[in-house]
Formats: sequence, structure tokens, C-alpha cells
Amino acid sequence: MDEVELFFAGTGGSAPSARRALPALLARLDGDRVLFDCGEGTQRQLLRSVGLADLDAVFLTHHHADHWLGLPGMLKTFDLRGREKPLDVFGPPGTGRLLGAMSGVWGRVGYELAIVELEPGDAIEFDGYEVECFNVRHRGRAFGYAIAEDERPGRFDVDAARALGVPPGPAFGRLQAGETVDGVSPDQVIGPPRPGRRIVLSGDTAPCEMVRTAARGADVLVHEATFLEEDAQRAALTEHSTARQAAQVAADAGVRLLALSHLSSRYPPSRVRDEARVVFEPVVVPRDFEAIDVPHVEKGEPRLVPWDRAARVPEAASELL
Amino acid sequence: MDEVELFFAGTGGSAPSARRALPALLARLDGDRVLFDCGEGTQRQLLRSVGLADLDAVFLTHHHADHWLGLPGMLKTFDLRGREKPLDVFGPPGTGRLLGAMSGVWGRVGYELAIVELEPGDAIEFDGYEVECFNVRHRGRAFGYAIAEDERPGRFDVDAARALGVPPGPAFGRLQAGETVDGVSPDQVIGPPRPGRRIVLSGDTAPCEMVRTAARGADVLVHEATFLEEDAQRAALTEHSTARQAAQVAADAGVRLLALSHLSSRYPPSRVRDEARVVFEPVVVPRDFEAIDVPHVEKGEPRLVPWDRAARVPEAASELL
Repeated sequence: MDEVELFFAGTGGSAPSARRALPALLARLDGDRVLFDCGEGTQRQLLRSVGLADLDAVFLTHHHADHWLGLPGMLKTFDLRGREKPLDVFGPPGTGRLLGAMSGVWGRVGYELAIVELEPGDAIEFDGYEVECFNVRHRGRAFGYAIAEDERPGRFDVDAARALGVPPGPAFGRLQAGETVDGVSPDQVIGPPRPGRRIVLSGDTAPCEMVRTAARGADVLVHEATFLEEDAQRAALTEHSTARQAAQVAADAGVRLLALSHLSSRYPPSRVRDEARVVFEPVVVPRDFEAIDVPHVEKGEPRLVPWDRAARVPEAASELL
Repeated sequence: MDEVELFFAGTGGSAPSARRALPALLARLDGDRVLFDCGEGTQRQLLRSVGLADLDAVFLTHHHADHWLGLPGMLKTFDLRGREKPLDVFGPPGTGRLLGAMSGVWGRVGYELAIVELEPGDAIEFDGYEVECFNVRHRGRAFGYAIAEDERPGRFDVDAARALGVPPGPAFGRLQAGETVDGVSPDQVIGPPRPGRRIVLSGDTAPCEMVRTAARGADVLVHEATFLEEDAQRAALTEHSTARQAAQVAADAGVRLLALSHLSSRYPPSRVRDEARVVFEPVVVPRDFEAIDVPHVEKGEPRLVPWDRAARVPEAASELL
């Protein structure tokens, strides 16, 4: 897997604001497009930015309406566009009943739609990565997810191979494919397997051990930060996190980058960021339509990609009649 | 009633596009805010433009999902904001069951929420106007609505009053209030009652007699134009209208202005407008966030108010961190 990018289609929580739509995060994993949560308006957030791709899978973190109300309309739109590719929607136990009650919205669709309830610890395999789910601490059943890239083969040591007398060319390829060549075995010229990238999404949760464990050494932790410390009691009551608590989880887990999301409009985002970075850096607070590029560790640090206004789909008001 | 404005919060149909959100029209009637239809994302369309007012009422035209999926989330948001004012949601028979199945989304709200099923011919009275519903021809039960301003008192003829010896001042007021003053009766100085404004919304419909009748002499007819004539068969099959058919209804009814909405992204809006104006003028095709100002007939023509970019809520991308 080469390109891994997290596109923030909606970074608000509970209620939308003028600036932040309801939760939705699109993971772009080479050619795959996997959506995590689908708040009301997600299909249009995508249409207004990177386009509404034919998603490969949707994962719901939990059943509060701000995280899934955009899904029925999106399933209907896929049908209106003539989608034929099957689509799996994954979520915690109860997802089948929740969405089943809405099935009148999309009716009979022309593609195979499967609603799959996961159990904590389940892992769904894709080409080059898997998506694992784990329990988090929120009101009712709620999951966090980890996108775990497959382990990568070790680095091929060209100099060592040459020193052992292996001629450059096809023989290098055979060694990398696992063959012994002229008495030289692969383990003599290929380093130990390298871990793949790991991206962890907390979903909605109070600070909890499961996120800490899942995020250990992760490249990116996207953690909710619905509150600031001044409202810590309210955060505890509603099983959400403060920015500082999220940062503490990131520090404990030793992640490379913390991204805070599920923001309330009651605080300026700069305060959310500032509260977190007392405890952990680097931390970013993506706006809607910003992305995080996640390169392999040897290629650089994960970084926030600002939304290029020039690349945007023109707004309604600029449409030529 | 003084100011009457129709604000187009969503002018698309069936599926949203980058430029057009799903159907929602906000009528601003002096201080009242009445919403007609509430497609997915409507609350945020309002937040991004004129603000999400505490609506006085919501009217649904019918039960296809593109016309109401934004309502459950909006009802929830009102509660999160601490709304206390009661809210009535009106719609065709079946609206109670439709929304009842969704009530888990908004749960117990802190305001009185009434879902009221209307019968064709019902009229809901407000301060200075009423909203009337009538059957239209779409798949399943579907309504159009008319906003009918109360009849206005006749014009007070100052010159006639003076000629009859009435002194300017309080006596003028007493005559206007219906009193006879010094032997001069109100009907000697006050003209016949003047009709109020009338705005008719077709909802989704094939061209039909009920809209023609309801729109007779209306100031504004907002008619759907999902198709062009080249797709007239498909329009008939799905019980929608072509732009030309909508224009013919406007011509038959003799309205002052036709506004076409519920546009499909398959046609450029200029083609929709051009097809209509062969049959009827003036016709406008509002974009999202444009409005129609509807003055009293003696004060001018109804006209499209372009969305002032400067007045917009800043977009996500321009938010300062």
C-alpha cells in the first residue's frame, strides 16, 4: 500500500455548525475508499469537495444519530447513480435493527447491500490492510477502529547482495520473492519485516484504556475532543473526552500525530488545540475538507494537508446560470 | 404583513449535487419562519447562510426521503439548543407514522412537538396569512401548498376625506378603524378591500389541474421542473414535470412570476430556464441561497435576490484556527 490519507468530511459533533459538518472521515487507502461514520449531509460534503466515490465499505462507530443519519440518503443516491458494486456497512451489535428500520428510505437497491454487526476484536481484511474494532466507553455500544496496514517485507540490502556475489538483475528479484540464489538465502540480504502503518479512530468515548492500547505506537490517533477541561464534569457525564484527556491518551500511547475531532461549536478550535498541546505534541485540529497524509515512517511524518481552495468544487453561488 | 421572502435553502431533487442541496424552502413572513420540506442537510444549509432560526412551522409536501430526511436531525438540534417554543410539523396523511418511526433520533425533546396530518383543503392560520394544502399528482399522497396573505383593508383616500370636511389627525384614524365621523362613513373614504399576496408551491407533481387552480393570479408559483421535454416520458412515468409543462401551468394560471426548482443535475440550469421561457415569462431558476422578494402588487414585481457572497457565513476552509 502506498498512499494513505484521512479526509475529514465532517469534524463537528452532536449538532452541525456553519463551519463543521457532522462526523465523517474518509480513508483513502490507495484505490480504496472507506468511510468511518456518516453524519447527516455527508454525501453532500463529499460532493462539495473530493467527490462522492463509490465507497468500498462503511464503518459506524455507534448509533447516536449524528453519526449515521447521512447513511440512508447516501445508500439511496448510490442506487440512483446505478451502483452495482456490493457494499458492506459494518457497525456494533444493533446496527442491523437500526438501519433496517430505515430501509424504506432506500427501498430495493440495485447493488448487494450487507449490514454486518461486528464483535469487539473482529478484523475485516482488505487488500493490504485490515480494519479492527474495539470497545470504547460511550453511552451504549460504541466502537473505535484501527486501520492496520499489513506487515511490509524487510528492506533488500543491495550492497550485501553484491558482496555475496549476487549479480544485479533478475537474481535480486528472485531473492526478494523468497528464493535462494547461488547459495545466498533471502534472510542474508533482506532485513526483518517492517511494521505497516496504523491509524486509530477513537469514535465517541470517554478516555479509555482500550484506545490507549489500540493506539500504541500508531502513526495517527484521531481522538474525539468534545469538551475542554472547564467542562470536564459534563464530559464525564456524557462519556466524552476533553482535549487534555485526548492528549493524555496520545502521550500514553506514544503516537506520531494526534488529530482532534468531534468538536463542539462552543469553543474556538484554537483553545482545543492549545489545551491539548500542553500535554502532547504534535497535535492538529483539522477543519472540514482538510486531510492527513500518512506516509511510511521512513518517508516522513504524518502531516495536515490544508484544503486547497482552488481545487474545490465551485459553490452554489458561483454557478453560471 | 410587510416583508415576504422565499429563501431557497435547497433547489436540487432526488440526489444532492455539489451545487444544489435537497429540497427546502424557507418562507420569511415578517417575523415568522416557515419551512417547506426539509431534505437531508437542510439545518446546515441554513446555518451556512441565513442562520437556523427557531422555525414557527414545518410543512412536508410528501414522504419521499429527499423531502424530509433532514427533519429528524433538525428536531434534535433544536432540543440541543434548548428550544422551548412549541413546533408543529404538518404533512399529508401518514406523516405521523413516518416520523414516529424516526422518533428515536430526537428522543424526548424539551419543547412541545406536534405532528399534524392534513387533509386536502385544510388551511392553517397564522398571524396575517394562512397556509392551505391541496392534492397534487405524484406517486403516493402528495400536497402542494399555498401561502395566502389575509385580505388587506382598502386604501384610505385622504383627498376625499378632506373634501368631506374631515380634519386630518385622529379623525382619519377613527375612520380607518371603521367608525363614522361627523356623518362621514368609512365606505365614503376607504376603497374596497385589497387582495393579499399569494404564493403557491407545487411540491413534486406531474402538471395538474389542482396547481393551476391554486395558482390562479398568484404572485409567485414555485413549480418543480425535474425534467426537460426530451425526457417527457420519464417525467410522466415518475409523475414529475418538465420545465415546459411547469411554464404552461404558470401561463394558464396567470401568475406574476414562475420559479423553477427541484432541478436534476443532468441538465444545465440555463436549459431549464430557456425551455420554460418559450412558454412563460418571467421565469427564474434560483440557486441555493438565492431568495425571491414578494412585495405587494402596488410596490413592484416579485424579483430574484442574488445571494450576496459578502454576507455569507465564512466557509470551513476560511475559518481561522
